[in-house]
Amino acid sequence: MPIRPLRILGLDPGLRFTGFGIIEADGNRLRHIADGVIGTDGDASVPERLRALDAALNRLLTDFMPDHAAVEETYVNRNATATLKLGYARGVVLLAPARAGVPVAEYGAKTVKRSVVGTGAAEKSQVALMVRRLLPGAAITRADAADALAVAICHAHHLATATRIPAA
Amino acid sequence: MPIRPLRILGLDPGLRFTGFGIIEADGNRLRHIADGVIGTDGDASVPERLRALDAALNRLLTDFMPDHAAVEETYVNRNATATLKLGYARGVVLLAPARAGVPVAEYGAKTVKRSVVGTGAAEKSQVALMVRRLLPGAAITRADAADALAVAICHAHHLATATRIPAA
Repeated sequence: MPIRPLRILGLDPGLRFTGFGIIEADGNRLRHIADGVIGTDGDASVPERLRALDAALNRLLTDFMPDHAAVEETYVNRNATATLKLGYARGVVLLAPARAGVPVAEYGAKTVKRSVVGTGAAEKSQVALMVRRLLPGAAITRADAADALAVAICHAHHLATATRIPAA
Repeated sequence: MPIRPLRILGLDPGLRFTGFGIIEADGNRLRHIADGVIGTDGDASVPERLRALDAALNRLLTDFMPDHAAVEETYVNRNATATLKLGYARGVVLLAPARAGVPVAEYGAKTVKRSVVGTGAAEKSQVALMVRRLLPGAAITRADAADALAVAICHAHHLATATRIPAA
């Protein structure tokens, strides 16, 4: 069992909006710390937008000092350009914690839904509802922030299971 | 006209191998400074590979202090997973110079070929041949390094044109 609550930073990457959510997990007990969205200027160049995203992520890492980061594995069925742009944002989102020495876990969308709602086929609205139920006090102004909190919760559940069954 | 030779860092991004090439441009006169390939460990996690790539890029930026960076816009016709992985590497490659305050230009593959060989339909081998001809002394041990030098040359040509025709 962890000797103190673990702080988990959940991230839902996107070049326009990256959702973030920070929770504390003490075994199965969860507490909401913060959530929000990092937006970048659509009129700025891609390198400048990535720089802004990276700077905001570094501020989160410095201010909240998470023990773990968890990122949703996004699958896209859109065109190659959209996929590439999502890749830029995910690359920066995976890099920032790694550079800060924070371990990064990745979870597929179905795993996150199964962990939070109980079924991998859950609707986005059900996920948001369960996030609010599991984390009373969370503001969650945008859907991206709910998704980020959901992946943080998913990671908390996985850590709790791994702690209970060390030989799994 | 530039008052001193401009140093340009060309980059050809990839998660497995990122080619780099550094040249100096004094108007239309080009000089080879360095080239090579940044490889990342295929057995390591994606965040760790991005961290290694970022660290190597930061060393290049510190050691060679380029005035400009130029990155090839790669188009992929492979599956979404491959495109996403390329996106991770490109995101990190676009971010590193931006974070160091170095302006980043992007050029499509056809623009690079037209600039170096004279036709957008040139073969990769023709590009490598012309890079060697334009930059005597370049080692170019790998194709990725030749592509990186080619995008650096392309940027040098564009800067020279922009300098000659300020009102363009």
